[in-house]
Parts: sequence; C-alpha cells; structure tokens
Amino acid sequence: MTPEEFRRRGHQVIDWIADYREHIARHPVMAQVSPGEIRARLPAAPPEQPEDMAAVLADLDRILLPGISHWQSPRFFGYFPANAPLAGVLGDLVSTGLGVIGLSWQSGPAITELEEVVTDWMRQMVGLSPAWSGVIQDTASTSTLVALLCARERASGYAMARGGMQEGAPPLLVYASAESHSSVGKAALLAGFGRDHLRLVPTDARQAMRPEALAAMIEADRADGLRPAAVVATTGTTATTAIDPVGAIAAVAARHGLWLHVDAAMAGSAMILPECRPLWEGIEGADSLVLNPHKWLGVPFDSSLYYVRDPEHLVRVMSTNPSYLQSATDGQVKSLRDWGIPLGRRFRALKIWFVLREQGVAALRARLRRDLENARWLASEVQATPQWRLLAPVPLQTLCLRHEPPGLAGAALDAHTLGWAGRINRSGAAYLTPAQLDGRWMVRVSIGAEPTERADVAALWRAMRAAAEEGPGEAGLGEAPAG
Amino acid sequence: MTPEEFRRRGHQVIDWIADYREHIARHPVMAQVSPGEIRARLPAAPPEQPEDMAAVLADLDRILLPGISHWQSPRFFGYFPANAPLAGVLGDLVSTGLGVIGLSWQSGPAITELEEVVTDWMRQMVGLSPAWSGVIQDTASTSTLVALLCARERASGYAMARGGMQEGAPPLLVYASAESHSSVGKAALLAGFGRDHLRLVPTDARQAMRPEALAAMIEADRADGLRPAAVVATTGTTATTAIDPVGAIAAVAARHGLWLHVDAAMAGSAMILPECRPLWEGIEGADSLVLNPHKWLGVPFDSSLYYVRDPEHLVRVMSTNPSYLQSATDGQVKSLRDWGIPLGRRFRALKIWFVLREQGVAALRARLRRDLENARWLASEVQATPQWRLLAPVPLQTLCLRHEPPGLAGAALDAHTLGWAGRINRSGAAYLTPAQLDGRWMVRVSIGAEPTERADVAALWRAMRAAAEEGPGEAGLGEAPAG
Ligand SMILES: Cc1ncc(COP(=O)(O)O)c(C=O)c1O
Ligand SMILES: Cc1ncc(COP(=O)(O)O)c(C=O)c1O
Repeated sequence: MTPEEFRRRGHQVIDWIADYREHIARHPVMAQVSPGEIRARLPAAPPEQPEDMAAVLADLDRILLPGISHWQSPRFFGYFPANAPLAGVLGDLVSTGLGVIGLSWQSGPAITELEEVVTDWMRQMVGLSPAWSGVIQDTASTSTLVALLCARERASGYAMARGGMQEGAPPLLVYASAESHSSVGKAALLAGFGRDHLRLVPTDARQAMRPEALAAMIEADRADGLRPAAVVATTGTTATTAIDPVGAIAAVAARHGLWLHVDAAMAGSAMILPECRPLWEGIEGADSLVLNPHKWLGVPFDSSLYYVRDPEHLVRVMSTNPSYLQSATDGQVKSLRDWGIPLGRRFRALKIWFVLREQGVAALRARLRRDLENARWLASEVQATPQWRLLAPVPLQTLCLRHEPPGLAGAALDAHTLGWAGRINRSGAAYLTPAQLDGRWMVRVSIGAEPTERADVAALWRAMRAAAEEGPGEAGLGEAPAG
Repeated sequence: MTPEEFRRRGHQVIDWIADYREHIARHPVMAQVSPGEIRARLPAAPPEQPEDMAAVLADLDRILLPGISHWQSPRFFGYFPANAPLAGVLGDLVSTGLGVIGLSWQSGPAITELEEVVTDWMRQMVGLSPAWSGVIQDTASTSTLVALLCARERASGYAMARGGMQEGAPPLLVYASAESHSSVGKAALLAGFGRDHLRLVPTDARQAMRPEALAAMIEADRADGLRPAAVVATTGTTATTAIDPVGAIAAVAARHGLWLHVDAAMAGSAMILPECRPLWEGIEGADSLVLNPHKWLGVPFDSSLYYVRDPEHLVRVMSTNPSYLQSATDGQVKSLRDWGIPLGRRFRALKIWFVLREQGVAALRARLRRDLENARWLASEVQATPQWRLLAPVPLQTLCLRHEPPGLAGAALDAHTLGWAGRINRSGAAYLTPAQLDGRWMVRVSIGAEPTERADVAALWRAMRAAAEEGPGEAGLGEAPAG
C-alpha cells in the first residue's frame, strides 16, 4: 500500500470508526452469534494474490462486526469498563504508523523517555509518592507475574543465579485472598511456587482479606519451617470490588519480611479522585502495585502500569545484556526491556500522552465521579425495591445484585438469575456478566463505559425489572437502546 | 473527543503518517539526541485542563520525532527488519477503534475466531502440518517463556499442581546454544530452573548447535542423576542467523524425552519461501515453535506466533476459570486466555488479516526474495573487496562483516570497527548495529526493511567503504539518503 493509497483508505477507516462510535447503540451489545459461525464464513486458506482493500473493509462489516461485543457501547455493563477514548485511538495510530521498536534506549530514545514521563504523570495523578518508578506492561496478569518473580528472588537471595526454585527446602509461600483475581494464582503457579504453597487467606463479610488471619497463617507456616515470601492484596476485587485493608496487610508484611504486591488493576483508576484514596490507605508500604489505565480510566488496551519502589531489584531479576543491545549510553539511560518479560516494545506511552493531554486530569475526574454517582443512584433504587437485593457494598462503580422472588432459593434461584440476565444479553439491549458469590449466581453491573449516562443506567434498571419480574416474555426488551 | 472531531483529527493523523512514510528518508535514520534530552523538553506534571489536539500534534513533530530512530527507513539495517506495512497500520487502527477485549470467546467471538483463522493461514504459509495449533503472543520472549513453562510441567508431571519447582531434586535442566537469544536464558531463569541448570551447548564453526555435543551433555547429566527437560533450537540466531540442525536435535530430544522448542523468531518469516524450508528441516519433531510476523514478514508489532502440537497440555498449564468468565459456550470454543499469560487480549488478528489480504502471499514471497537477493549481492561485493571480510555464512538476509586493515588486530581492530559504524550511525545516512562474535566486535547488516531496494544497499556499501577506508573524515557521508 503506497502512502497515497493509505491516505485514501485511511480516511475511510477513520470515518468508519467515527460512524461506528456515533451509532454504536444500534448494535446488539452482546454478539448474537454461535460458536464457529464467524470462522465458517472466512476462507480456510490465505489469498495468493492481493485483494482490494474495499473487499477487506466490506468483510469487516459483513462478517466480523456481527461477531463483536460492543465494549464501547453506553449499554455495556459487563466485566469492567475498558474505555478506548478516541484521542487514545489516535495516539495508538501514531505509534503503529511510526512502526518503531523500543529494544533499548538507542533504538528509539523517545519511546523510553516518554514512557518515563507519562508513568510519572500517572504516579502523581493517583497520589503516589516520588519513591515509586513505573513501567508499562501489557496486562495486570503480566504485572502480577513480574511482582511474584521479584518476590521470589528477594526471598531466595537470587536463587535464579544458582539453583533456581529447585533449590527446594524450605519452600517459599504466597498469600492472597480467595477473592483475588485468577491471575494471582496463575502467576504463583507459573512462577513455580506450586499450588501447595499458595495460601488463600479468609475474608470478612465484605469479601476483604482479614489481616489477622493472614498474620496467624504466616506464623503457623513459619512455625512449620516454611518461608512466607509474598502477599498480594487487592484494591477492588473483580467480583465485588472488595477492598483489602492495605495498611494492615502492609504492617503484617513488614513484620515478617514479605513482599507486598497490590493488585489495583481495576480500582487504581479511582485513585485520581482524592476522595477515593482512603481505599488504598497504606499503599506506600507496598513493594509493587499494578493499575490498568486500559480499564476504567480509558487508555486503549493494552496499557497496564506496574510500579515498584526498588527498580534496581526489578532490573536484576529481569535483565539481559547481549552485545548487540549494548551501546555507549547504557549507563545513563533506562533499558525498559529489563523492567519486564518482552524484549521488544511498542511506543505505548503515546496513547497515554494523547489521552491525558486531550482530556486533562479535571475531565477524567469528572467522568469517574459521574460513574460513581450513577452507581450510587442504582444502588439506592435496588435497595428501595422489594425482592431486589444488593449482595455487597458498593465502594466504587460495580453492583452485585439479585432478584429474589419469595420462595425461590438454591438451584432454582440460580436458574432464575441466569435466566433473566441471559434474556437481557440475548435481547441485545445491554450486556451484564453473572458471577458467583458464596457459591450462588448473582449479576454484576459494572458501570463506567465512556458514553454511559444516567439515562442508560435507568434504561438498564427498567430492562432488569422487566426481565426478572415479568419473566421469559421479555417484555420491555424489544426497545431499541438510545445512544 | 467527539466522533466529529475524531473524523477531522483522524484525517490529519492519517495524512501525517502518509507524509512521514513518504519522506522518511529525510530523517537521520538513527536518532541524534542525547540521554535525557527528550524528557527535559516535556512538562514534569500532567495537564489539569484539556489541551488542543493541534498542540499535541505539534509537539509530536517538534519534541518526539527527533527522538525516533526510523525503523521503517530504507536505510535501516540495524537489529532486524520490523516492518509495519501501511495495510497493517489500518488493521491495527480498526482494532483500537473497536476497543473490544477478548477475555473469553463470548466477550468478542470474532476476536477468537479470526485469530484461529489467521494463525492457521500462517501455518499453511510456512509449510507446517495441520498437527500444529497457533496463538498470537506479544513477543518471542513471552512465547519462549510459555514454552519452557510447558516443558517444565511436562517433565515434572504437573508439579505446579503440587509443590511446584520447589519439589526440588532431581533438578530439571534446559539446553540451548551459546548463540541462542538472550530471551532463552531469561525464560529459563524466570521459569525457575536456575542458572546452574541452564546448559550452553557448544556450537560449530558456523555458530550452529552441535547435536552430538547436546547428546553427550544429556547423557552425562542423566548419569549424574539430573533430569534433562527441554532443549531450545534456534533457526536463525540473532547475531549471525546461524541455523541449528533441528532434525538432528529433534532426534536427540525424542530419544531422551525432552521438550523441543524452536526459536524461529526472525527466520520463521523466510519459511513462506519453499526454498528456505530446508533450514528448519525436521521441524515436525518439535513440541513448540515461535515465529514473529512483526519482524521481517511485516505485521506491525506486536505479533508473535506461538505454535504447539499439544494444545491441551498448553491449556492445562495456563488455564484459569473463574465464574465471571464462564459461559454456556465454554465447551465448544477456544479460550485464548488459557493459551498464554495475559487475560485480556487486543484484536491483534485484524492486522495480520489486513496485511495478508492486501498483499497476498505471492507479493510477500517476492519481497523476501528481493531481500535475499540484495544480501547475496552485498556478500559478493564484500568478498570481492580487499580488507573486507564476511565473518559468517549468509543463509538469509543478515551479513556479519568487518573491515580489517593490515596490521590492525585485537582492541585496535575493535576500536576501528566501532569507530566506522558509529560514524555512519551519527551521520544519519544509515543505521547499523555492531555486535560481538567470538569476543570481537563486528558489524551486522540486516537487510529487509519494506522500502529497501538495491540502490539503498549499494549506497550503504559506498558509505561503509568511505567510513572505514577513509577514516574519521567522514567523507561521502554528508550525502542525503535517497528514498
Ligand atoms: C482485580 C483485577 N486484577 C487483574 C485483572 C486482570 O487484568 P488483565 O486483563 O490486565 O490481566 C482484572 C481484570 O479482569 C481485575 O479486575
Ligand atoms: C532469534 C530471536 N529470538 C528472539 C528474539 C526476541 O524477539 P521479541 O522482541 O519478540 O521477544 C529475537 C529478536 O530480537 C531474535 O532474533
């Protein structure tokens, strides 16, 4: 494709995206296709000869779009908000258009230096002290894996430089609550600790880790001759946005010399609001933390920020230094390849830079406050309505709720819950994700897509009542969602 | 940013990229800035209020562009080609514009299904049998880490579900050649094997792993009661594109029950040429392999393909299945989160799909053959010129060379080599990466940027001769590089 053709086709793609976002509410929020349906409409073999871009763009509309669930829709209440504001789309476009790779500082100095700048901007925005240094990772899953690798090496005195985890006894242990994200257990297992050495700390009635239970487990394990190495606290769990008490956990971690990693993947965005910062009070006592601007804050995926207090330790665990990557500037610059797993890196700082500059911090704060306000409104509606129940506190923008008609319990209640949520999803009017809490199904309403206004939340509430209270007739769900 | 403003600014960014690519040869190929220079020109704190997009775009030109090394330049001969064809830029733009996340099949069915389709297209293109299943990872570093985790778990009978690597004796071992990429050793250390259990297998005169040395090491280790677990063979090493004999290594691996992972990150692209496939003859005997379309083939970074023969084993090592990710279709679909480390995933298949359709396989083959032809031409020029020497065979598109004036050796020769390469880089006329071979510096010329034609290679050769033969006068380097 020549630059001239790119100009023409590029304008067309930009217009396509502008139209898509403008009219996104026309699409059913959840894709309405069956497994294999999209694949079956695509050729089994690659094209030998070039095809016209027009055909590719037509297939995008005709074949792929029906297989898309619309995360940017105002009626998307599933999983978590993963906002991709249009300014961020442009920042990412510049990155891909430049086509540069950050292997080392020299291979693209601006890639490293803008990343230093925007991670420090974000540090200031969420109220962290200057003792923290940040780096962009792809996801929180990767950030947490990096954290547990760092914890492992600190606790073992850099066993990786000797016999590794295979030096064996006494084994290292990792602690997290049963409500922690699946990526925490996955990271512990991938890092080689083994499931036998992953301790699930009990939670309280609000699904938050109990620090005294943590302390007791650590003491018992030490008495058994084992070596507690790390604890992962979550600020805003995935199911219910429960808030582990970071300060109390940090005190336990400090007393026993554990690495403390804080998973604020989702809720970290809220820390740009000073009124939310008490939720992670004590954060300065952590060793590492992750927060995902690609969630609620709104930097297009992937953009996960990993902060550490001891970057030298991180580099010692992650570094490589082959000759073809060496250069005269090595002592004076950061080599971000030594701050994570991948060698190559995209110019991801650009999309963060575009979003922060185009929006400004004040507007970002206003948007998050709008969402918190909407969540409080819906919570009060639910609480004021007979047969509806909130199952967990609502510290942020996620509600956990159930419609509980008299006489329904156990498996029958589960069937009712999955039934009405499924009817809404299949109607295309909104997207909700059911999840389990204490072994029973409930429905999560995660508010915070960029275009979601009060009217959208009110429409969702009407649709939920219709679907749950009136049953399979699906009354009220035929309405076209308003944009 | 509203869709209307996005339309206007988007057209502007598209034009900016078209202009950038059209006139890329105007920029010095290697960034000419000093450490900290870019950072010093950026504000230390984030903007409180929104800024005009025009200011952001102006800063892109004024502040960031001088800090970019131009990987898409026709005179980029550094590291490896990392092509980002403009059709791929559009594919990636659509992905960011849609702003969808593949957490599970249901969260965006087309994300999973197009990925299945394009990884299978690529499988066919490089001549692999249908026994392989592929997934997109970010980088080869990550793919190789996943491979060694899978090897670890197969060899230990899923110790991750018990005591993990800490079960200890007898320790598991990993083998790779000393010429393997730094990501291999890093992966072995991160996976917990420990440096004591990473064996570097000797290479022959062509820098290729010696399979009989591998066999002897394995036998000695087994006799010592250790457990050889994995071997990594490289098709196309980073320094010299050396080719480990995959077939012979596979035979050794099979005899001793080792996992064989093949790192074809760079050279895998060449396998779309049937005449290159003998270079990885025996590949069907491997358990896993990685190849990076984001290198020579030309899909914008990041796009690394990881193929395995036993996807069930991969899923068993990588899977997580929390309730909020469960859905009714689970049994019928792939959950790509269980094929790697991150949970969330971008719609990366789109950029591969755009490139393959817009170019067609025939044109991709023609471009790679052009580059191989250019490398052969330069190799013959170097060989025919007194005082110039090729230091390694040229099976692909990378040349390792040195200018060796009579009487210069040892440290003085190193100084000469780094001197002339540095002068070319600082002149802005071309970008070359020096590297070490057998403890001495040499210069790598990696041919294969998308716009690089014979005239560019010829101009590089003139510039190299001028810089090396005429010395610090930098004669002949002032010329503006032609596009
Ligand atoms: C608390 C928490 N941690 C981690 C994750 C994983 O995020 P990622 O997809 O960036 O790995 C999520 C999101 O699903 C989350 O809510
Ligand atoms: C042979 C080989 N393996 C692995 C890599 C690492 O690639 P990535 O940046 O995708 O991790 C490279 C490229 O530098 C390479 O040449």
